[in-house]
Amino acid sequence: MMLSDPAKKYRPFVAVDLPDRQWPSQRIETPPIWCSVDLRDGNQSLIDPMDHERKERLFDILLKVGFKQIEVGFPSASQTDFDFVRTLIEQDKIPEDVTIQVLTQARPHLIERTFEALKGAKNAIVHVYNATDPMFRRVVFNVDKSECVEIAVEATKQIRAQMEAAPETNWTFQYSPELFTTTEMDFAVEIVEAVMQAFEPTSDNRMIVNLPATVEVATPNNYADQIEWFCRHVKNRDHLIVSVHPHNDRGTGVAAAELTLMAGADRVEGTLFGNGERTGNVDIVTMAMNMYTQGVHPQLDFSNITPVMREVEYCNQLPVHPRHPYVGDLVFTAFSGSHQDAIKKGMTDRRANPEAVWDVPYLPIDPLDVGRSYEAVIRVNSQSGKGGVSYLLEQEHGIELPRRLSIEFSQVVQEVADRTGKEITSQMIYQAFADEYLEQQAPFTLINHRLSSEPDSPKVSLEAVVEENGQRQTLNGEGNGPLAAFIKALAAAGHDVEIIDYHEHSRGQGADAEAIAYVEVRIDGKAVFGVGNDESITSASMKGVLSAINRHYSNQEPAANVTAETLV
Amino acid sequence: MMLSDPAKKYRPFVAVDLPDRQWPSQRIETPPIWCSVDLRDGNQSLIDPMDHERKERLFDILLKVGFKQIEVGFPSASQTDFDFVRTLIEQDKIPEDVTIQVLTQARPHLIERTFEALKGAKNAIVHVYNATDPMFRRVVFNVDKSECVEIAVEATKQIRAQMEAAPETNWTFQYSPELFTTTEMDFAVEIVEAVMQAFEPTSDNRMIVNLPATVEVATPNNYADQIEWFCRHVKNRDHLIVSVHPHNDRGTGVAAAELTLMAGADRVEGTLFGNGERTGNVDIVTMAMNMYTQGVHPQLDFSNITPVMREVEYCNQLPVHPRHPYVGDLVFTAFSGSHQDAIKKGMTDRRANPEAVWDVPYLPIDPLDVGRSYEAVIRVNSQSGKGGVSYLLEQEHGIELPRRLSIEFSQVVQEVADRTGKEITSQMIYQAFADEYLEQQAPFTLINHRLSSEPDSPKVSLEAVVEENGQRQTLNGEGNGPLAAFIKALAAAGHDVEIIDYHEHSRGQGADAEAIAYVEVRIDGKAVFGVGNDESITSASMKGVLSAINRHYSNQEPAANVTAETLV
Repeated sequence: MMLSDPAKKYRPFVAVDLPDRQWPSQRIETPPIWCSVDLRDGNQSLIDPMDHERKERLFDILLKVGFKQIEVGFPSASQTDFDFVRTLIEQDKIPEDVTIQVLTQARPHLIERTFEALKGAKNAIVHVYNATDPMFRRVVFNVDKSECVEIAVEATKQIRAQMEAAPETNWTFQYSPELFTTTEMDFAVEIVEAVMQAFEPTSDNRMIVNLPATVEVATPNNYADQIEWFCRHVKNRDHLIVSVHPHNDRGTGVAAAELTLMAGADRVEGTLFGNGERTGNVDIVTMAMNMYTQGVHPQLDFSNITPVMREVEYCNQLPVHPRHPYVGDLVFTAFSGSHQDAIKKGMTDRRANPEAVWDVPYLPIDPLDVGRSYEAVIRVNSQSGKGGVSYLLEQEHGIELPRRLSIEFSQVVQEVADRTGKEITSQMIYQAFADEYLEQQAPFTLINHRLSSEPDSPKVSLEAVVEENGQRQTLNGEGNGPLAAFIKALAAAGHDVEIIDYHEHSRGQGADAEAIAYVEVRIDGKAVFGVGNDESITSASMKGVLSAINRHYSNQEPAANVTAETLV
Repeated sequence: MMLSDPAKKYRPFVAVDLPDRQWPSQRIETPPIWCSVDLRDGNQSLIDPMDHERKERLFDILLKVGFKQIEVGFPSASQTDFDFVRTLIEQDKIPEDVTIQVLTQARPHLIERTFEALKGAKNAIVHVYNATDPMFRRVVFNVDKSECVEIAVEATKQIRAQMEAAPETNWTFQYSPELFTTTEMDFAVEIVEAVMQAFEPTSDNRMIVNLPATVEVATPNNYADQIEWFCRHVKNRDHLIVSVHPHNDRGTGVAAAELTLMAGADRVEGTLFGNGERTGNVDIVTMAMNMYTQGVHPQLDFSNITPVMREVEYCNQLPVHPRHPYVGDLVFTAFSGSHQDAIKKGMTDRRANPEAVWDVPYLPIDPLDVGRSYEAVIRVNSQSGKGGVSYLLEQEHGIELPRRLSIEFSQVVQEVADRTGKEITSQMIYQAFADEYLEQQAPFTLINHRLSSEPDSPKVSLEAVVEENGQRQTLNGEGNGPLAAFIKALAAAGHDVEIIDYHEHSRGQGADAEAIAYVEVRIDGKAVFGVGNDESITSASMKGVLSAINRHYSNQEPAANVTAETLV
């Protein structure tokens, strides 16, 4: 055991004393108020923060999904966030029934700036926080409890005054005691009650108290205990909307959020697919779909979940994992024969009873409900997946397929798998690749070529000897480079192709090294890939072009000429 | 709301009646018995199942991590699994203190075959299951409860007899009522008691009863309730090792496993980083490290977690997500200024009290404990991350950096960020790229070149005019292709370089298209990247070579010649 003894360095979480807890017998029967923090907590934790265009796209997808509360930024801390909030308001991009939320620290000039950012908003939540956790009080801010309370109360008073000075906006006030879960529970209640006294919420005009698990530090039942304890101890509970903000440091963010809802929370702050600081915020998609499988409509729309995922992946520039609940590429897939058989029988049974409740083995949800299909459920149990094929070609044969070619080639391998009905080996994959691309020698084969260029001229002259159906012919062309010259030479001989894309790399090192060129060309209006390999980079690329032409013609008769365009 | 109304199609999970549950007041104080099912449940759900080499590598990493129980396959269902088990036994690859486990269905010929696979094993668990879930009984197998019990009992008797016939192995028997969580609880107890009656375990010779959440169907407290209910109702609880096998369909597999340990489970079956069917099995790494942060040594070793992750990624050919707890690339990273500031203060405080319990803001664990570093904690809050930079170059400038170059270039951008101290724009990134690679014109600049080749000869002759510190010179070389000829020409002029790697692709389409070549060369024993762009693919690659040479010489004095090797 190399992991050092943790007994001295780490202490067990001190649970709140609540032997008569009620939440374990509760059930989630209505959805919470959802608040997306993708544009704030999510964005601030990206390697590459979103630019304005990506922020707008993410805001749009949040609206489409159906969020009514969206934290759009931290305008007092970032000019980009400030400008984004102004754009949303000034360009009237916020629907009437949607409330934007902004975060601010509890400092006078930042609160001032926050209200500047919100000027003219129809509905807005001003979310202020300060650190109440004892470690933060001592080490980070050097304040005692009463100073800590004073910071919160002063900020509250200022916010209340600024809200009253701008009655054209429907304001909601939100306060977070930061790192709630590691704050002494009685102090958390004390500071929230002090803030309530300053803001004076009522049951008709509730304020939000957000109780964040800024860092997840204990098994998820502890967060639920704390929320139940808080709700039972705070005065005027009915003047509050109790919000949770779970993180996922222990991989139990969704569970913690669910248990806190059972414990009495009204509202959840989280993100799509769980993006956010470190291990992320709670994933609202999983929470929503979990409710859905229990017959509770989450009031969010993931009926076509794949485009939502792709858009979020684009905006965050982070992938969603292939095993991510409800959306990952592999989650509606059964590989083992016994699973496939059971699903088949379950599907048959369901067709006979289409009105029955969903009960198909190994599928906790009907894939159709999220826009996925039954076809995706069963795959050939061989080395036929796209990832596997590309991986093997790269690892064992030094062939790095461009992405689109890798998708095309996966279908070739699939056909081999279907035809042979057996495990596909790495050698079979390479052979399929060679047969499909490298060995396409008819109707055209490159016999040899000759290049010449003159100093001070950008042009290259090419003379290529090509065999067409066994007949040798010499093609001549001139271009900015050898490949362009070859395209010209082909055009002069009546074979018009246009280069769409071109990749080339070395394969192997030293004496055995060769170049491999992947060329995507357009012929007769169709895009076709070809691949060539040769010791010479120019020969490899020309062979790639001929491979594409051969593949095209082996599938159909040659058509009339189309316009040629020059390229590389 | 396009998501259709779920009220009729889905029903809420029916909770077990356990108002006096005890588990919510419990705490995990000792680690469970861990059993890895990576080689079985994990492997069977891969797009590309492991070959023998990858299985051995995964087995090795499981041993290194410290697993003492490893489910190695389903030998009666797969020849590959059978052969793998035989290899482990015959080649003596299983340490004395490690027990292998194999799965089998409850069918006589499969049990027979299972024991063939295990012949000669020192320690083995035979794991038999049958489906007890009512939907499976009705639709998939068409058996009633008594037939279902008979299947389990007959299999148990056969296994007991085969174990008694092979006393040279230390046998353990394991039974799973399949889809335990959706089986009627009283029937689960009934069938387990019938199996116990047939096997006759004792408190000194316990059998394992594994109670799987084969599909996760409810909030995680329900699984805990079921385990506590089962443990309280089954006869002779002390004759059993109670095992759980959680899946992650609702994203709460880790939570469910933790709560079942609090509810009395002794053992956990799961996988590294949560690979497995659909959304995966429970992630044992997260569970183990969660215990560690509470001062409980998990008896597994993740003190150097990154190589474990890389090895598992290789074997599974699936990525671990950058936000995966304890191991993802982003989980020890703070982006926001306030987080960075708090961490800094916490670290300073810790240096003053190195023996205190760990309490640094935003870091639930000391990154050093898993072999990660403090340096990784704080990054420049700009568009300076590797992913972001590569992404922007590709999206906005059509530049697709090879992986190693992308890592090198991220340091260049980091320097720019540090120097300018402001947000890095896409334009600044491109400029940094151009300055660092494309614009390296000294000491060498390519003025022009001339190529010629003869039909039927594989050789290309090159005459290149190159300026060195303002002095023009003509270099001549011959090779299998233009790049090889250029390397020869350089060598003849006293500049020995060797090509390590080479990538080239087109950038743009039509009249504006050009080629961009990334060349990694070895000069004076050092690997250096260069990049060239040109309308001609040959000029681009030659410029790439000169860019690398210029970058090398701009950092140091030219050294003596080393051996030249020809390439492409």
